[in-house]
Amino acid sequence: MISTLHSRTSRGADGDPAPRLAYGADYNPEQWPREVWEEDIRLMREAGVNVVSVAIFSWARLQPGPDTWDFGWLDEVMDLLHAGGIGVDLATATASPPPWLTTAHPEILPVTANGETVWPGARQHWRPTSPVFREHALRLVRKIAERYREHPALVAWHVSNELGCHNVYDYSDDAARAFRAWLRARYGTLDALNHAWGTAFWSQRYTDWDQILPPRLAASHPNPTQQLDFKRFSSDALKDHLVAEREILKELTPGTPVTTNFMVMGNTKGMDYADWADEVDFVSNDHYVHPGPQDRDELSFSANLTSGIASGRPWFLMEHSTSAVNWQPVNVAKRPGDLERDALLHVAHGADAVCYFQWRQSAAGAEKYHSAMVPHAGEDSEVFRAVAGLGATLRALAPVAGSHRETASVGILFDWASWWASEQDSHPTALLSYRQEALDWYSALLALGIRADLVTTRADLSRHQVLIAPVLHVVPARLAKELTRYAEQGGHLVTTYFSGVVDENDHVWLGGYPGALRELLGIRVEEFGPLLGDESVELDGSLTGSLWTDRITVTDGDTEVLAAYRTGEQAGRPAVTRRPTGGGSAAYVSTRLGVEGLTSLLPRLLGPAGVESELPAEVRGLIEPVVRRDAENRFLFLVNRTDDTVVVRGLDGEALVGSTGADGALTLGPRAVAVLRQPAA
Amino acid sequence: MISTLHSRTSRGADGDPAPRLAYGADYNPEQWPREVWEEDIRLMREAGVNVVSVAIFSWARLQPGPDTWDFGWLDEVMDLLHAGGIGVDLATATASPPPWLTTAHPEILPVTANGETVWPGARQHWRPTSPVFREHALRLVRKIAERYREHPALVAWHVSNELGCHNVYDYSDDAARAFRAWLRARYGTLDALNHAWGTAFWSQRYTDWDQILPPRLAASHPNPTQQLDFKRFSSDALKDHLVAEREILKELTPGTPVTTNFMVMGNTKGMDYADWADEVDFVSNDHYVHPGPQDRDELSFSANLTSGIASGRPWFLMEHSTSAVNWQPVNVAKRPGDLERDALLHVAHGADAVCYFQWRQSAAGAEKYHSAMVPHAGEDSEVFRAVAGLGATLRALAPVAGSHRETASVGILFDWASWWASEQDSHPTALLSYRQEALDWYSALLALGIRADLVTTRADLSRHQVLIAPVLHVVPARLAKELTRYAEQGGHLVTTYFSGVVDENDHVWLGGYPGALRELLGIRVEEFGPLLGDESVELDGSLTGSLWTDRITVTDGDTEVLAAYRTGEQAGRPAVTRRPTGGGSAAYVSTRLGVEGLTSLLPRLLGPAGVESELPAEVRGLIEPVVRRDAENRFLFLVNRTDDTVVVRGLDGEALVGSTGADGALTLGPRAVAVLRQPAA
Amino acid sequence: MISTLHSRTSRGADGDPAPRLAYGADYNPEQWPREVWEEDIRLMREAGVNVVSVAIFSWARLQPGPDTWDFGWLDEVMDLLHAGGIGVDLATATASPPPWLTTAHPEILPVTANGETVWPGARQHWRPTSPVFREHALRLVRKIAERYREHPALVAWHVSNELGCHNVYDYSDDAARAFRAWLRARYGTLDALNHAWGTAFWSQRYTDWDQILPPRLAASHPNPTQQLDFKRFSSDALKDHLVAEREILKELTPGTPVTTNFMVMGNTKGMDYADWADEVDFVSNDHYVHPGPQDRDELSFSANLTSGIASGRPWFLMEHSTSAVNWQPVNVAKRPGDLERDALLHVAHGADAVCYFQWRQSAAGAEKYHSAMVPHAGEDSEVFRAVAGLGATLRALAPVAGSHRETASVGILFDWASWWASEQDSHPTALLSYRQEALDWYSALLALGIRADLVTTRADLSRHQVLIAPVLHVVPARLAKELTRYAEQGGHLVTTYFSGVVDENDHVWLGGYPGALRELLGIRVEEFGPLLGDESVELDGSLTGSLWTDRITVTDGDTEVLAAYRTGEQAGRPAVTRRPTGGGSAAYVSTRLGVEGLTSLLPRLLGPAGVESELPAEVRGLIEPVVRRDAENRFLFLVNRTDDTVVVRGLDGEALVGSTGADGALTLGPRAVAVLRQPAA
Repeated sequence: MISTLHSRTSRGADGDPAPRLAYGADYNPEQWPREVWEEDIRLMREAGVNVVSVAIFSWARLQPGPDTWDFGWLDEVMDLLHAGGIGVDLATATASPPPWLTTAHPEILPVTANGETVWPGARQHWRPTSPVFREHALRLVRKIAERYREHPALVAWHVSNELGCHNVYDYSDDAARAFRAWLRARYGTLDALNHAWGTAFWSQRYTDWDQILPPRLAASHPNPTQQLDFKRFSSDALKDHLVAEREILKELTPGTPVTTNFMVMGNTKGMDYADWADEVDFVSNDHYVHPGPQDRDELSFSANLTSGIASGRPWFLMEHSTSAVNWQPVNVAKRPGDLERDALLHVAHGADAVCYFQWRQSAAGAEKYHSAMVPHAGEDSEVFRAVAGLGATLRALAPVAGSHRETASVGILFDWASWWASEQDSHPTALLSYRQEALDWYSALLALGIRADLVTTRADLSRHQVLIAPVLHVVPARLAKELTRYAEQGGHLVTTYFSGVVDENDHVWLGGYPGALRELLGIRVEEFGPLLGDESVELDGSLTGSLWTDRITVTDGDTEVLAAYRTGEQAGRPAVTRRPTGGGSAAYVSTRLGVEGLTSLLPRLLGPAGVESELPAEVRGLIEPVVRRDAENRFLFLVNRTDDTVVVRGLDGEALVGSTGADGALTLGPRAVAVLRQPAA
Repeated sequence: MISTLHSRTSRGADGDPAPRLAYGADYNPEQWPREVWEEDIRLMREAGVNVVSVAIFSWARLQPGPDTWDFGWLDEVMDLLHAGGIGVDLATATASPPPWLTTAHPEILPVTANGETVWPGARQHWRPTSPVFREHALRLVRKIAERYREHPALVAWHVSNELGCHNVYDYSDDAARAFRAWLRARYGTLDALNHAWGTAFWSQRYTDWDQILPPRLAASHPNPTQQLDFKRFSSDALKDHLVAEREILKELTPGTPVTTNFMVMGNTKGMDYADWADEVDFVSNDHYVHPGPQDRDELSFSANLTSGIASGRPWFLMEHSTSAVNWQPVNVAKRPGDLERDALLHVAHGADAVCYFQWRQSAAGAEKYHSAMVPHAGEDSEVFRAVAGLGATLRALAPVAGSHRETASVGILFDWASWWASEQDSHPTALLSYRQEALDWYSALLALGIRADLVTTRADLSRHQVLIAPVLHVVPARLAKELTRYAEQGGHLVTTYFSGVVDENDHVWLGGYPGALRELLGIRVEEFGPLLGDESVELDGSLTGSLWTDRITVTDGDTEVLAAYRTGEQAGRPAVTRRPTGGGSAAYVSTRLGVEGLTSLLPRLLGPAGVESELPAEVRGLIEPVVRRDAENRFLFLVNRTDDTVVVRGLDGEALVGSTGADGALTLGPRAVAVLRQPAA
Repeated sequence: MISTLHSRTSRGADGDPAPRLAYGADYNPEQWPREVWEEDIRLMREAGVNVVSVAIFSWARLQPGPDTWDFGWLDEVMDLLHAGGIGVDLATATASPPPWLTTAHPEILPVTANGETVWPGARQHWRPTSPVFREHALRLVRKIAERYREHPALVAWHVSNELGCHNVYDYSDDAARAFRAWLRARYGTLDALNHAWGTAFWSQRYTDWDQILPPRLAASHPNPTQQLDFKRFSSDALKDHLVAEREILKELTPGTPVTTNFMVMGNTKGMDYADWADEVDFVSNDHYVHPGPQDRDELSFSANLTSGIASGRPWFLMEHSTSAVNWQPVNVAKRPGDLERDALLHVAHGADAVCYFQWRQSAAGAEKYHSAMVPHAGEDSEVFRAVAGLGATLRALAPVAGSHRETASVGILFDWASWWASEQDSHPTALLSYRQEALDWYSALLALGIRADLVTTRADLSRHQVLIAPVLHVVPARLAKELTRYAEQGGHLVTTYFSGVVDENDHVWLGGYPGALRELLGIRVEEFGPLLGDESVELDGSLTGSLWTDRITVTDGDTEVLAAYRTGEQAGRPAVTRRPTGGGSAAYVSTRLGVEGLTSLLPRLLGPAGVESELPAEVRGLIEPVVRRDAENRFLFLVNRTDDTVVVRGLDGEALVGSTGADGALTLGPRAVAVLRQPAA
C-alpha cells in the first residue's frame, strides 16, 4: 500500500509522476493565527516538504461539544495544502480526548496499578478498553472520514497517535473485564488458566473468571504469568483499538492506506509491533535520539528493526527531531550534520519518508522546547537551512523510493515475548537489559563493518547464514524445533545466557538449562551465576564478562569450548561453546561481553559461515554500510560513524549523494552519508 | 507598624522607653507542667527575652470541642508573661486543626496530586480553600481576638503559622472550584484562558469553566501554563486566608500590628512573598541553616531578600534555631559562635527581632530533637549561656532598632514568576536551579567584599547602578520596557542564560532568544545548548561553564564579547557579552560559571559602573559588610565569614559590638561580628 | 515441647528411637502431577529428610469455595509421607486467602499508609485485624485440625506462614478500630494517652477515642509516639492472630506442638519476636543470606539471636535456601561448601532442624528461581548431592539434638523497642542503623574469637560478665534500675551513642543525655554531634569514628577517658569512657567505630572482666567457636570463617564432624565446620 501512498504524495506541485521520498512533519496550524498559514505553505515548498500529518490533536477543536462540529478551519487547511502541492496524512484526531468528554465521562480515565486516576492535563488519558471512549472515538473517525474521503490532499490515514505511549497499562475495572474476556479466549477453561499461571503456588487458584484481576499493587511480586499475560493483553487491547478505527476508514475509503505511528525503541516496551505490523497498510515509526555512547548505533538499530517489522518493505519515519527534544532530563541540541545523517540513516534502513515532530516550534504548551523544522528563531536559522538542505538531498534520493532492504548474511532475532519475560521481577538478576544485549551485538557487527538484519520470530529465519538470538528467553516447543531445524540445515545459531529457559507460559523447561535448547547446544547448566553490579570475570582471549555466568557442563562430545572462565566461581568451566550440527552450528555465550568483547569474539562465530565485511578493510568500523535494492538497482548507503573525515576507496557505483573523486575515492566528512547506485546483481 | 511593636515590646520590666531589639521564641507552655512556667519566666528574664509567640498550636487546647472553650490556662500564661515584662506575639492558633474538627469534617483534609488524602497526625492538614475550615478558623480568630484585645501583654498578632509549609499545593475538589473562580477573575473569558494556556496543543480546549482541574497526576507533562497558574493560584489562596484572618483582627484591634511568619528560603517555593508583603503590618521570617559549603552565604541571602521583600524596612526574625534542627537527614549542631553570628547576620540585614523555635526543647513530639533556647540539658548548658550572651549583645545593639537598610550600588533581582517558570518540566534541562544561580552571584559579590541588595520586581530598580538579574526567565512586555529604560538611563544590567525567554503566560518570545531582551543585549540565540550533568566547557580567561551554553550571534555592532567559548559545541562563539547603551550597558552570561568564575568575571562587569568594595583590600572576601542607617546613624556590620581571626583596620566609628584596639584595629575572632556606629553622611 | 517434636520426628522409617536432628523442607506437592510424588518420597529418603511442612499455601486447594472442601489429595500426601517415614509439620494453610474469598470480601485487603488497596496477585493480602478474615481463617484451621488431629504423620502445627512478612502494617479502618481498642487497653484514659503521645504539640489533643487514627500519610512527620505505638500494636495484632489459631489447635490437639516461622533478621522489623516467643511451643525461624562483606556474620547473628529469643533452648530452622533466592536484586548462587556451612552454623546456634524453602524447585510462579533441595536440573546435580551429603552430616550430629546453648561470658542486648524507636524520623540523624551497630559489635567479637550471646531484655542479664548494649535507645525507669544494679553487682556494661535517651513513651530523659544512664556512666552530654554521611573523626589509638559524636562532659571523678576525640568539633573531649562501679563498670562509646575499630577497642573493655577467647591464639578470628551442651556433653562447633584451610591444634574431644589427625590437629577446609564432643565440665 505504500505504493499507493507514493503515487499520491507524487501528485505534488511539480507534477513529477515518479515515486519520490516523502518529506514533512506534524503540522498543527490550529496553534497559530491564520496569517501564519500562508507563510507555512511558502516555507514548506522552500524546504521541499510534500506531506504533512494534520489534526493529530484536534479533537477538541473539531468537536467542541457532544453534538457540535467545527470543520471549517480544517477544510481551509486541507485546501491550502493541496494548493501548495502538499499531501496530507490525515489523523483520526482521537489521540487525546477533549475536556468536555472526560468531564462528562470520567470513567474513561486510566487507573494506575496503585489505584490512582490518571487525570486530563497532558494527553492520552483514556482507557484502551473503555466502551464509552471507543464509542466516542469511532464516531469522530467516521465523521472525519466521511468529510475528507474525497479530498484531493488526502494521501493516507493516521490512526490516533503513538498508541500506548502513556496509556498502555491501565488497571481499571474496564481493563479487568477486558482482561478476563481476553484470558477466556486464550485459555478456554479455568483449569487451563490455573495451570498456565501456576496458581497452585501462593493459593491463587481461580474458581470463577470474575475473580481475575490485572496485576495491581500487591503485597509482593504478582504472579509472573499473570504479569506476562497482562502485557500481552495490553498490547492486544491497543491493537484492537487500532483495528476498530481502521475498519471504519477501510469501509469508507478502501483505497486509502492506513497507518499509525509506532515507537519501536520508545520509552515503553508495551506494544508488540511485530504483531501489529499486519494491521496497517504501511509501517510508520517515531524515533528520538537518547544521547549516549551508542546513540547513533541505537538509531540504526531502531530503523533496522522497523524494517524487520515491515518485513523489509519501505516504511515511514513519521516523527523525528530536527534537534533537541523536551522530555529528556537534559535535551541536547544536534550538532551540524546530525540532522541530515540521522535522517538518511533511517532512509538507508528502508524509510521512504522523513517526517518530523513538528513543522513549526510551538510558542506555548508542553512541547514548546521541542525542536521543529521552523524553530523559534524562524526561517533565518541554521536549523531551517539544514531542513531545506535535507529536502534537496531527499529529492536526489528519489530513485531509492520503493526499494526494499537487501537481506544480510547475519540476522539478529528480536522478540517481544523474550523482552517482556526476561526483564520481569523475581529473576536471577534485576540488572539484565534485553535491549542493551541486542544492541551490543549490533554495535559489535557495526564495528566489524558487517551488515545484519534485525528480524522478528515471524520472519523466515532461514534466509540468514548466521542467526544471533540474544537472551532468547521464551522458547516455546515450536520455536525450539524451528531453531534446531535451522542449525541442522546449515544455519549458524548464536545465543546467549538466559535463553531457552521458559516456554510461552513462563514455565521453566526442566532438567537443566537452557532446557529448550540444551540438546541443540550440547551443554547443560545446573545453576545460574549472576554477578553483582560491580563484579566481572575474566575469560580466555582477554574477554571480560559481567552481569551473568553459568555453571556449564558440556554434554555432547562434539561441543567445542571457544572460551573458558579464568576467574570467578566458574573458573575453569566453559564460557563460550559451539556445537557443530549438520553443516551448521549452535553457539552459546554465557556472560555479557559488551561491545568490545563481542567485537573480539564475533569473527570466530562468523568464520564457519564465511561471513565477512563487504567494506575495504581500512574503513571497517568507521563506515556503516546499508543496502536497499529493487529490480534494477542496488543502493549502497555509506554512513560515516565518526566525527572525522573518512575516505572510502574501491567501491563502484553512481553517487546519488556524495561525490566520487577523480581517483574513484569517496570522501565523507564527519557524520556524512554517501549513497551509491549500483546495478542489481 | 513595627514602630508600634517597638513601643509595645519596650514596655518591659526595665521600663526603658527607647526602641530596642526584640528577643524571644515560640513559647509552648501547654507542653509543660504548671511548675515549669515560673522557671520559664525567670530564665527568660535572665536571657533578656522580651517577646514570645504564644498559642501557635493551641487550637485543640483552647477549643476542645465545637462549642467548648478553655482559655483559663492562656489567661494565666499571658498574665505571668506580662508580670515578667515580656510581650506576647499572640497566635491565632489556626495552624493545625484539632482532631475533633477533622473527624467531624474530613472534607477539610488536603488531597495530593495523586489523589491521596493527607491525614492528621502531623500538622497543617487543611485545605486553604475549604469553606468549612475557613469558617471554623475565623470563629476561633474572633474568639481569641475578643478575649485578648485589651490584654496588656499583647504586642502583635501572629496569623496561623508558616502558611503553606506543608499545604500550599492541594488538588482537592475544593481547590478545583477555587482555581476556576481564580481563573475566571484572571482571564474573564474562556477564549482568553485557552489562548494563555495554549490549549490548541494536545486537544485541551475548554468549553466550560467546570472542565478545568488542578494539574493532578496526568499521563505526561501537564500543560505548563496550567501548572504556572496553579502555582500563582495556590500562593493567592493562602494569601486569601491570611487576609481573612487579618480582617477580623483589624476589625477588633485596629491598632495592633499583624504579621505571619514567612519562610523566604524554606523548603517550598510555593508562596510569592513579594506579593504577600503588603498584607502584613511588618514582615516576619523563619530561617534555618542547611549545612553545606554556602550555608552562611545562604543565611545572608535569605535575610537580605527578606529585607528586600520588606522594602528595606526592619522586619522580624520569627524563627531560627539555637543549634540543630530535627527535620534534615543529618541535623548538625552549631559550633561555638554560630549562634551569635547567625543571629547578628539577620540583624545586620534588617531584623529588629531575633526569635527562636522554641523557648524550651520539647521532651516529646515530632520536634523534640529540635534545639531551643533552653535545651534538654537545662540552663546549665553551653547553649543557654550563649543564649544569655546574645541577649546582652542585642541590648547593646538597641540603637540599631528601627533603622533601615542602606541601598547598595548593586541590586540582585529575585522573581517568583521566574523561579516557578524556569524550573518547570519539559525544559532544555531539568538541572537548572534558579535559587542556586542567584546565590552564586551573591556569594561572588561577598567574595569581592561588595554589598548587594536582593530586590524584587516590585522595587524601584533604578536605585542601583548595577542590576544583576540571574535567570530572569519570565519577562512580560512591561518588564522588558522597564529594563531597557533602566539601561538606557545609565543602569548596568547583567543577565544570564534562559532569561527573557517567555512572557507572563509562559509563551516564548519568538524570533530568537532571549526574545524580550534581544535588542537590548544586542545578541541573538538560535538554540540552547544545555550540558549534561558531568559536562563542562572552557571559556576565555580560565572560566569554566557548566549546565548551559547558548548558540549566540552578535547582532549589534556595539556589542562586545567579554569571553568566548574555547571548547564544546559553541567553541569560538561568544559566551559573555556586553552592549553599551546610553550611559549604561546590558551584559549577558550564557553559561553557569559558579562562584569562582563569577568572582573572576564580576570586576569586568562592575567596572563601567565604578562599583568597588568599601572594605580595605586585605579583608575583602573575609568580611561581609552590611549597613543599616537611620536619620542620624550609619551602622556598619562586619561579619567574619571565616573560621580564623581577621583584623580590620582603617574603619571609623563607635563599636557597639566588638572593640577597637589602641591602633584603631578591629579584631574579629572566628565567625565573630562587630558593629560600628558612624554618623550618617 | 520440642522434645515432643523430637520423639515424633524420631518415629521414622529406620525406627531409631533416639532424638535426632530434623531435616526437610516446605513441600508443595500440589504444584506437581501425581507421578512426581513417588519420586519425591524416594529422593527425600535418599537425602535423609525426616520432616516436611505441608499445605502452607493450600487454602484455595483445600477450600475451593465458601462451603466446598477438598482434602482428598492432602490425605494421600500425608499417607505417602507417613509410609515413607517422614513426619509432617502441617500448616494451617491460612497464609494466603483464595481468590473467592477476596472477591466476596474485598474488605479484608490491607490498605497502605497512602490509602492504596493491596490487591491479590501475590500472597498475604489480608488485614491482621479483619474480623471477616479471622472468621474464615479460624474456620479453616478448625477443619484441618479436626481432619488430621489423629494422623500418624503429624508431628507439629505450622501456624500460617511468615506472619507479617508483607502485611504487618495495615492502615485500614479495621486497623484504626483495633488500634483504638489496643490504646484503650494500654492507656485506660485519653488523658494518659494525650500525655504519653505529647499531643500538646501541634494541636493533637484527642477528646474521643474515635478520633485516633493509624499514622497514615500526613503533611509532615506524624507524632513519634503514635508511630511507636502503632509498631507495637501492629506486632500485637499479628500475635493475636497467632494466638487465635493456636487456641483452636490446642483445643483439638493439646499434645501436638505449635509453631510459626519467625523471620528474625528478615526484611521487616515489624514483629517483636522476643514478645512472641512465649506463644509458641518451640521457636522456628526463616533465614536467607544477603550477600555482602558481613553476610555469614549476619547469619550467625541471626541464629544466635533466635537462640536468645528461644531462651537458649533448641529451635527449628524452618526456611533457608540451598543456593540462590529470587527476591534480591541479584540472586547469587552459593559456592561449594556454603550449603553445609550455612546449615551447620544454624545448628551450632541451637537449631535442632534444618529445613529449606522448598523441596522441589517450582517450574512456575513467583518463586521459580528460588533454589530448592531438588533443583530444576533434577537429582543429577551438585545441589542435590550436597543436600544428600548434609543429610548424612546431620545424622552424625544426632547426639547434639536437644542440647542447649552454653551461656557465654559476653551478652549483647537486642531490643525491639530500641530498634523501632532509634530509627524513627525527626532524629539527629537518619543514617543510624540499629541492626548494623549490633552486628558490628558481634563481628568484632568474632574477629577476636570470643563467644557472645545475643539476648533480649526479657533474659536474665546477670548471667554475663560483660553486657554490650548498642544503641539501647529506650530505657524505661525499670531497665535503668536493672542495668545499674547489674554494674554495681560486678557486671561490666558497655553502651553506645543514642542510648538511654528516652523512656517507653519516647519522652526524653531531661537534664542531659543519656538521661537514664547518666549517673551510672558518670558522664553528661549536652548536645549530640551527628556527622554527615561522608564525615569522620579521629580518636586516640588510631580509631576512626563516623555517624555520631557527643559533646561529653565527665561528671564523676572516677570516670576514665579511654579515648578522646582528636579531630572534629569535639576535639579534645572524651569519646570513650568507663566508670568503675562496685566490682563492675559502665562504659560508653560515643561514636560509630565500625568492626575494625571495635576489634581494636574491645580488649580494653573486656579486660576488667577477664574475658578472653577460648581458642588457640593463632586461629582467633579465623574460626567461629559455638558451644551447645546437655547434661553429659559439651559440643564445640568450630566454623571456618575463611576461604582458606585452617588447622586447629590443642583442642580435645571426639570429632562428630571433621576428623582429628594423628597429631591431634583438626584441619578445616575452606568454609568447613567441625564438631567436637567433650565431656560436660
